[in-house]
Amino acid sequence: MIVNSARTVEIKREILAGNTLKAHAFRTARKNEGTFMMDVMGSPGSGKTTLLLALIEELRHRDAFEIGVIEADLESDVDALKIKEAGVASVELNTKGVCHVEMNMVEKAFEAFDDTGFDCLFLENIGNLVCPAEFDTGCHSRIMLLSVPEGYDKVYKYPPMFAVVDALVVTKCDYLPFNPDFDRTALHDAARKLNPSLDVFQVSARTGEGIAELAAWIGSRRAETLAHPGDAR
Amino acid sequence: MIVNSARTVEIKREILAGNTLKAHAFRTARKNEGTFMMDVMGSPGSGKTTLLLALIEELRHRDAFEIGVIEADLESDVDALKIKEAGVASVELNTKGVCHVEMNMVEKAFEAFDDTGFDCLFLENIGNLVCPAEFDTGCHSRIMLLSVPEGYDKVYKYPPMFAVVDALVVTKCDYLPFNPDFDRTALHDAARKLNPSLDVFQVSARTGEGIAELAAWIGSRRAETLAHPGDAR
Repeated sequence: MIVNSARTVEIKREILAGNTLKAHAFRTARKNEGTFMMDVMGSPGSGKTTLLLALIEELRHRDAFEIGVIEADLESDVDALKIKEAGVASVELNTKGVCHVEMNMVEKAFEAFDDTGFDCLFLENIGNLVCPAEFDTGCHSRIMLLSVPEGYDKVYKYPPMFAVVDALVVTKCDYLPFNPDFDRTALHDAARKLNPSLDVFQVSARTGEGIAELAAWIGSRRAETLAHPGDAR
Repeated sequence: MIVNSARTVEIKREILAGNTLKAHAFRTARKNEGTFMMDVMGSPGSGKTTLLLALIEELRHRDAFEIGVIEADLESDVDALKIKEAGVASVELNTKGVCHVEMNMVEKAFEAFDDTGFDCLFLENIGNLVCPAEFDTGCHSRIMLLSVPEGYDKVYKYPPMFAVVDALVVTKCDYLPFNPDFDRTALHDAARKLNPSLDVFQVSARTGEGIAELAAWIGSRRAETLAHPGDAR
């Protein structure tokens, strides 16, 4: 049976329309400054902060990128502190309980950086496999994490996020031996049915598996985005 | 920095007020029929369906309870089918992308059962550690799952849900040997600071650890709820 709240759906549409316009302007402005921005999404505990730390290490050494991070959280500064400890410019975006990030939040967080001449700016979104998929955050690319312990069947149960991202990053792959039921073929097939151009990566921040490949992909996406003049998509 | 959307917060308040009134009436009606209802919440992949299957098995054998399940999902019927296969009366509540369950959804789902003389009715909420915490679903008790692979620090990052539930169920405890960083003492301390009357369970549906204890606790909560006449809280 299908039941949802017409009022909730109607209100969401109203908020989304204004958000998309702002996102388009923000994305174009960052592109014109040479900053490639990436939205990193996934469930609580899918490994977003840990992956970011591994990626930043790789990108700084490999491409000498200047990197910034906007760390969105409901309340705490746990993740923002971890990023700061790694010596990366970061701003904590505290939504005070709101379950996703909207453009007015991104704009304010961006203004809070001392310097903004980043080559690459990451937004670590709220840990939530549902709501963030609907809100354009003004980024040039979006990726989602799915950790092995969560189970491959999340692709059937939370399809919107799989449909909107450029890459699916399967994290915590060092857990694969303990999860013989994790059906990678079924996951890839179902995800690509929702999103035919989806790129898929397998990583483990613990063992380092796949981090270099993902960093190289980010470098390519950045180069492609900045190569084309005019408005950002 | 704290940034959220005033418009979003204002709209949420408006929706919540109507929802709470309906929840109170629903909760009282179920109690008067002898049905104890429990809301089961947690992240995607925290193990809600698997725990429910283990609990149902235990509760049916132990207390001979008549059990029903409302399976909320964004889109698919994956979980509802698993419950049906276990021979349990279940209704699929498909929110079509809405990230939480509201009372008008619960009411419609409840009406869709052929018979409703349940001793115990479970609502498996949308996999989301944020939004469901705010919406009263008309249940007599609420529990949340946190799986070991998600990490104990989720208590700092997603406090609202820890604050509103009666029990925290730490799932996938068979993963503890692979997660030496999972600090149970810090988790319990932080959770009880948010919620002093919180009960905490450790379970593993794989090994069966803790399932009998949790089932016994549910039996007690049911007995307490039904023992007191009048309105349900």
